[in-house]
Amino acid sequence: MSKSMLIVMQLEELFLARSFLDGPVGLVPTMGYLHAGHISLVEKAGLECKGVIATIFVNPTQFGPTEDLEKYPRNIDGDLKLLEAAGVDVVWMPTAQIMYPPGYQTWVDVENMTKPLEGSMRPGHFRGVTTVVAKLFNATRPDRAYFGQKDAQQAAVIRQMTRDLSYPIEIIVCSTRREADGLAMSSRNSYLAPEQRLAAVVLFRALNAAQSAYKEGERNAERLRQVVRDIINLEPLAKLQYVSCADYETFQELEVVNSKALLSLAVFMGATRLIDNFILE
Amino acid sequence: MSKSMLIVMQLEELFLARSFLDGPVGLVPTMGYLHAGHISLVEKAGLECKGVIATIFVNPTQFGPTEDLEKYPRNIDGDLKLLEAAGVDVVWMPTAQIMYPPGYQTWVDVENMTKPLEGSMRPGHFRGVTTVVAKLFNATRPDRAYFGQKDAQQAAVIRQMTRDLSYPIEIIVCSTRREADGLAMSSRNSYLAPEQRLAAVVLFRALNAAQSAYKEGERNAERLRQVVRDIINLEPLAKLQYVSCADYETFQELEVVNSKALLSLAVFMGATRLIDNFILE
Repeated sequence: MSKSMLIVMQLEELFLARSFLDGPVGLVPTMGYLHAGHISLVEKAGLECKGVIATIFVNPTQFGPTEDLEKYPRNIDGDLKLLEAAGVDVVWMPTAQIMYPPGYQTWVDVENMTKPLEGSMRPGHFRGVTTVVAKLFNATRPDRAYFGQKDAQQAAVIRQMTRDLSYPIEIIVCSTRREADGLAMSSRNSYLAPEQRLAAVVLFRALNAAQSAYKEGERNAERLRQVVRDIINLEPLAKLQYVSCADYETFQELEVVNSKALLSLAVFMGATRLIDNFILE
Repeated sequence: MSKSMLIVMQLEELFLARSFLDGPVGLVPTMGYLHAGHISLVEKAGLECKGVIATIFVNPTQFGPTEDLEKYPRNIDGDLKLLEAAGVDVVWMPTAQIMYPPGYQTWVDVENMTKPLEGSMRPGHFRGVTTVVAKLFNATRPDRAYFGQKDAQQAAVIRQMTRDLSYPIEIIVCSTRREADGLAMSSRNSYLAPEQRLAAVVLFRALNAAQSAYKEGERNAERLRQVVRDIINLEPLAKLQYVSCADYETFQELEVVNSKALLSLAVFMGATRLIDNFILE
């Protein structure tokens, strides 16, 4: 149990490290700057798997040209301490040059379910996500892979890709971890100024209010979306980008909620874009 | 050595069969109707690997709407006898329904090198090839995979995909097997009427003549292409679709051959489309 964590960068080092792991092997892909949400994934992987691989890679192909790739927060030393304490066996930290060498020209695309919601707001985002996750799956050959529910559409897209591309991998989606006031944990929360941080709880409050309406019997999707809009609009520091009440499988907007649904939103707090969601069922 | 060959269809059966194999594992993907070229791949895999998986799947997504998917030749019983005699451990024969279930929506695309040659003549062909080969790689997790040099661009595209998508798989390309008169072996040769079969040797003769010119010092790519054209045009049963003298890495057409090059052609014998190639180096 006191074996030390292997940290590898090159692909050949990873392949060698992987060959030493007994199965089942769990994979936890991250972009670093880890918080308790990431660690809950690692801990779940540790409970369910004999070997745990975590990856840290800020994947440039999933950022749009106007997005926050350059300033995405990093804290490698802190991340490695957290991963080692959580019992990770191998950390793979490739460079962009290793992942996308000169002449790179291959892309993995999931079609229909990447069109709405985050896909419509962030063109090319999911192509970057599915391509890099396919690469992580191929290079690490896990039995299980762990993702967070906060990125609900991402988790569903990866589940679809995994099934479509015949991977022998179980996709495990873990519930969103929240701060004491309800704000969903996110590396991007570190961008928030103190007054924005306080105001950011409005996402959780809006989702909560809509969920209460749902529990009290409201099934009209537009009225549920309006509950969210009304609360976000009361917060002067928040600007709603979208609110969605969509089918949980297809992400098509609903008129009436009569099966499992995803209530989700994206909000700008200044230049910082936050997302969150609740499942209605 | 007398263990019997496992034949599986469902994905879960394959995963189980794969788990019993010791590595290194070799994969030989085929569309069935096997000839000595396929068997040479299986035999090479058997020499280099502890476990050999062969797949038989006529992949609908790599056929264009006007192509020969429906009439593609099949001989499952004969194929299985050949594979067992060649020492294959596991044969995976999925159905189209298993490979592309309802709701399927994921594609693997290699961009630049799929544009010229076969890619330009068969739109969507390589997207189908790379998608199905990625699925075969994911489902079987081989250490080595074996392809024939007759489909030279396909082999290069798969090599590129393998590198780009970080697969820990070695791509091994085996030389083209030929009939006694030089015709490249192909399942599609079975379409040829007797007089077409005799005439089909013109592909080999044309490539041979151009290679002789190259060996005698001809480095002008257009003159090498013209050698091929002149010989094909002398055969009334043959209709040249394209002849190419291209860079071996990029498949861009050359003016002067001063590095490794691919001399390739596609010829219609009636409705039957045949391809062949020589490497110039």
